[in-house]
Amino acid sequence: MKQTDLSKYNNSWYKPGSAIKRTLWYFINLLFLINPLNPSSGLKKALLKLFGAKIASGVVIKPGVNIKYPWKLSIGEHTWIGENVWIDNLDQVTIGKNCCLSQGALLLCGNHNFKKKTFDLMIGPIVLEDGVWIGAQSMLTPNTICKSHAVLSVQSVASGELETYSIYRGNPAVKVKLRKIE
Amino acid sequence: MKQTDLSKYNNSWYKPGSAIKRTLWYFINLLFLINPLNPSSGLKKALLKLFGAKIASGVVIKPGVNIKYPWKLSIGEHTWIGENVWIDNLDQVTIGKNCCLSQGALLLCGNHNFKKKTFDLMIGPIVLEDGVWIGAQSMLTPNTICKSHAVLSVQSVASGELETYSIYRGNPAVKVKLRKIE
Amino acid sequence: MKQTDLSKYNNSWYKPGSAIKRTLWYFINLLFLINPLNPSSGLKKALLKLFGAKIASGVVIKPGVNIKYPWKLSIGEHTWIGENVWIDNLDQVTIGKNCCLSQGALLLCGNHNFKKKTFDLMIGPIVLEDGVWIGAQSMLTPNTICKSHAVLSVQSVASGELETYSIYRGNPAVKVKLRKIE
Repeated sequence: MKQTDLSKYNNSWYKPGSAIKRTLWYFINLLFLINPLNPSSGLKKALLKLFGAKIASGVVIKPGVNIKYPWKLSIGEHTWIGENVWIDNLDQVTIGKNCCLSQGALLLCGNHNFKKKTFDLMIGPIVLEDGVWIGAQSMLTPNTICKSHAVLSVQSVASGELETYSIYRGNPAVKVKLRKIE
Repeated sequence: MKQTDLSKYNNSWYKPGSAIKRTLWYFINLLFLINPLNPSSGLKKALLKLFGAKIASGVVIKPGVNIKYPWKLSIGEHTWIGENVWIDNLDQVTIGKNCCLSQGALLLCGNHNFKKKTFDLMIGPIVLEDGVWIGAQSMLTPNTICKSHAVLSVQSVASGELETYSIYRGNPAVKVKLRKIE
Repeated sequence: MKQTDLSKYNNSWYKPGSAIKRTLWYFINLLFLINPLNPSSGLKKALLKLFGAKIASGVVIKPGVNIKYPWKLSIGEHTWIGENVWIDNLDQVTIGKNCCLSQGALLLCGNHNFKKKTFDLMIGPIVLEDGVWIGAQSMLTPNTICKSHAVLSVQSVASGELETYSIYRGNPAVKVKLRKIE
């Protein structure tokens, strides 16, 4: 059988931003977002915007949040990013309004091609439409789209499309019921 | 379909303690519990008690533990709180004696009503009776009671009641066998 | 029914290294590996080797990695240890070449005997043969061996043996398909 050889890994085609910008953001992210000594949202949102994020009014960013590239992030009005959420946005992440990402949720935009000896990097965007709720310690994989008001239960893994007003659970997450809002 | 509107979220009914006490604890928790530079249990237990926690003799608190409100926490004799355990006790958490919470376990007392436009906060207590073991990276949701000597396997999610001397696994966790102690 | 009594817990038979060495490593691990202020691999690998780890050429150690005992660790050529990976190696962990451990993976070498009143410590080694990929937030339990080019999907829990060139998913992880490399 053929074997992988990571010494041949080549992601030079992937240009996520200048090295200076990425290095600066790496340390700002560490000191002001991941570092919970700064619990308020204001400074975090100002720094995210300074680095190109689109952040609407009323957004809440809790302590311990880890964001890879602000310039690949858009967050709508009154959306909450919970404690220790990790937005590993190698590709664009677009979050609608009135969404909630609960504690420890992970949005993963990177993957590897396990069919290639060179284990090539693959990336894909993630979209959360309005009113979506991602439960604590759950994960979204690349190319996931959560349609309006979909819910992913705690500690679950979603891929592909979550339907509108539907509740999903498990790994892989399956639809378990409908969400009716009074 | 109706839509959520988090600008209308109102948790003013929830009074978890004075703002001064919560702010002080937030930073003490960061500097002395979450911060692993202080590996010993003694100072942590003294601080937890100072803020109202009931901590019996012989309790071990490992590095990286995150506790929301000490005044809503009770821990019995010789119980171990493992590395990076997160007790997010918006409501009362009562842990018996001789329990073990393994690495990265999460006790979650908060939830939201996804049937309401206003996404109302809902809280519920968690009880662990004597001899319970919560496996690494597992999660308990609000209103869970783990009866005497129940075991939740690793990376599992428990809700409701775990029966005495029974072993549970999965998301949602189901009973997989009995626990017999020689 | 009999009850556990953790005051009788006795792991004095377990001798993982001198107290001085373990204490020194505890703080070096905190300051230079777990602490993401040092993003490069070079210093981390030098420190790991100084404490007895076998680290081949081309190994990449990302930020936030947590390693219990370097003297119980061996990593082959061009293997990647991803962000926030936790190698809790109470026993020997042997990782082959061209492996990838993705974000937040946990290698767990410790367990407890839940059939004993004294909740005895049990340990077991973990082996990853060449070309293995452990997905984000997945966990390996003691005595797991991942044979050549096995893949464990995201947020899954593996125990026992993963077969060569096979893909596993779930908790407990089951074989879902074969891995063919072009």
